[in-house]
Amino acid sequence: MRIVVLAGGIGGARFLVGVREYARQVGAEVTAVVNVGDDLYLHGLKICPDLDSVMYTLGGGADPERGWGRVGESWTIKSELAAYGAEPTWFGLGDKDIATHLVRTTMLGGGYPLSAVTEALATRWQPGVRLLPATDDRLETHAVVDLDGAQRAIHFQEWWVRHRAEVPTHRFVFVGAESAKPAPGVLDAIGSADIVLVAPSNPVVSIAPIIAVPGLREAVSDGPAPVVGVSPIIGGAPVRGMADRCLAVLGVECSAAGVGGLYGSRTAGGLLDGWLVAEEDEGTLVPEVTVRAVPLRMTDEAATAAMVRAAVELR
Amino acid sequence: MRIVVLAGGIGGARFLVGVREYARQVGAEVTAVVNVGDDLYLHGLKICPDLDSVMYTLGGGADPERGWGRVGESWTIKSELAAYGAEPTWFGLGDKDIATHLVRTTMLGGGYPLSAVTEALATRWQPGVRLLPATDDRLETHAVVDLDGAQRAIHFQEWWVRHRAEVPTHRFVFVGAESAKPAPGVLDAIGSADIVLVAPSNPVVSIAPIIAVPGLREAVSDGPAPVVGVSPIIGGAPVRGMADRCLAVLGVECSAAGVGGLYGSRTAGGLLDGWLVAEEDEGTLVPEVTVRAVPLRMTDEAATAAMVRAAVELR
Repeated sequence: MRIVVLAGGIGGARFLVGVREYARQVGAEVTAVVNVGDDLYLHGLKICPDLDSVMYTLGGGADPERGWGRVGESWTIKSELAAYGAEPTWFGLGDKDIATHLVRTTMLGGGYPLSAVTEALATRWQPGVRLLPATDDRLETHAVVDLDGAQRAIHFQEWWVRHRAEVPTHRFVFVGAESAKPAPGVLDAIGSADIVLVAPSNPVVSIAPIIAVPGLREAVSDGPAPVVGVSPIIGGAPVRGMADRCLAVLGVECSAAGVGGLYGSRTAGGLLDGWLVAEEDEGTLVPEVTVRAVPLRMTDEAATAAMVRAAVELR
Repeated sequence: MRIVVLAGGIGGARFLVGVREYARQVGAEVTAVVNVGDDLYLHGLKICPDLDSVMYTLGGGADPERGWGRVGESWTIKSELAAYGAEPTWFGLGDKDIATHLVRTTMLGGGYPLSAVTEALATRWQPGVRLLPATDDRLETHAVVDLDGAQRAIHFQEWWVRHRAEVPTHRFVFVGAESAKPAPGVLDAIGSADIVLVAPSNPVVSIAPIIAVPGLREAVSDGPAPVVGVSPIIGGAPVRGMADRCLAVLGVECSAAGVGGLYGSRTAGGLLDGWLVAEEDEGTLVPEVTVRAVPLRMTDEAATAAMVRAAVELR
């Protein structure tokens, strides 16, 4: 059995822990297609927050308290950069984390594509899941906002981390998406999958940039595998993160029904065959999509694996 | 009064502490023209060991025990890079030090020349001395060695740090020197100096790469200012470092007379008017150069300033 998961950062990472456990139980292979829209260069370093969250979490190196970055992290370089007055200061890079970025940036500079770099980094972390960036090309999520009296597009991280999503926001754009190509292996993985799962990640800034890669959305929506999504919204609120603010920008209701409707039914050119929602959202309806309500809190590996089993059985 | 110092790394840095103290006593301005031949890229970072040794030492941030790098240094990234299997592993970069390299590499990538980057970094360290790289261009000292059965040129740092200078060595070459230009300010500083001092740095791999920049040697040897060198060799041995091994490659005797002769007299197309040697080397003769013997141990700032005073008075 082959499982493909479309995934963003922290929510995607925790979901993938459950997918990996489920895959062990049933003897399945897992490929994660991970969002790169959050990626950015800072201090000359290529940072891939979602790929790293997934890699560190699956590799046992993530900080479980903070939810991002490395466990046992230190912040020497951050304070040194501040002492130099080096901008920006609003994005904190830990020392251990920086080593990952140094290796990645060096390899990218040597001509390796991001997918090859990710594979190389994963030889250390042994995530137990094949990690693929959605694309090797530069694709960045920017927010079009009102700031300092003008409308401007700022990088998603600046919007999210620096401004805490608290600026008037008109829309999100995926810069570079038009000319991006799916990373090697992505289309093959989707095309040969027995099921495609959409992780309970932010639909607007984690999942949307993945399927913004030309050909990738079509591979999922027109492919042979059933597609089941897991709602990131429980009882009208995101489990974590700021999906509510992102959905508001699109004018989509922050509810399991709202996100399910945003993805839409495969029969109507959308993404989903099935939509797994929380018990709290029992009764959610999405036109032409099979909806099922189960316990949806990713409290531990076993609970998450049970969610995954329910999602797979929904196909 | 204007003092220009040609300087390498650690020896040059300690000498400059004395030059700065002497300059305070007499109200002089100091410009240090620093070797860049040791510079290299590691893990995508531009490392300038000599400029950093000088900057950290004068700025009070150097590790006095180790003699290089930052005081209170940590090594998180080094062990992380090793965990990734990232090469090379023979050059250890401290966490604090890496922040300097990140700022430098980012600025260089943004188009700033090394001299401007050095000035920017110095706004934090306030070295009290104007720091100029000998050149903004890439000029690297390589050693031509016998290694693994073949003759090959390796970067000076690989020769020095990795192989501890313990490989058969034919010569040193300054890659890029032919097309290098003196950094902005260097020729002006030398041309308007009241005295040029040659620090007690390694003559072969610290001072030679400086004067290998076309126009720089001529500015010193044909300039209006008297030139006084300070011997890095005391009693037939280098005070620290491996100048003896470097001199052996050139077939030059490891002695105050040997190095003085290598620099040569300005009247004969060389560098020196005066040559300050240690008491132990009283009686040293260099043709057409005024030699004086004084206590030459840089034990503290006052002792070093006294050395500098003796050098200045030798002109």
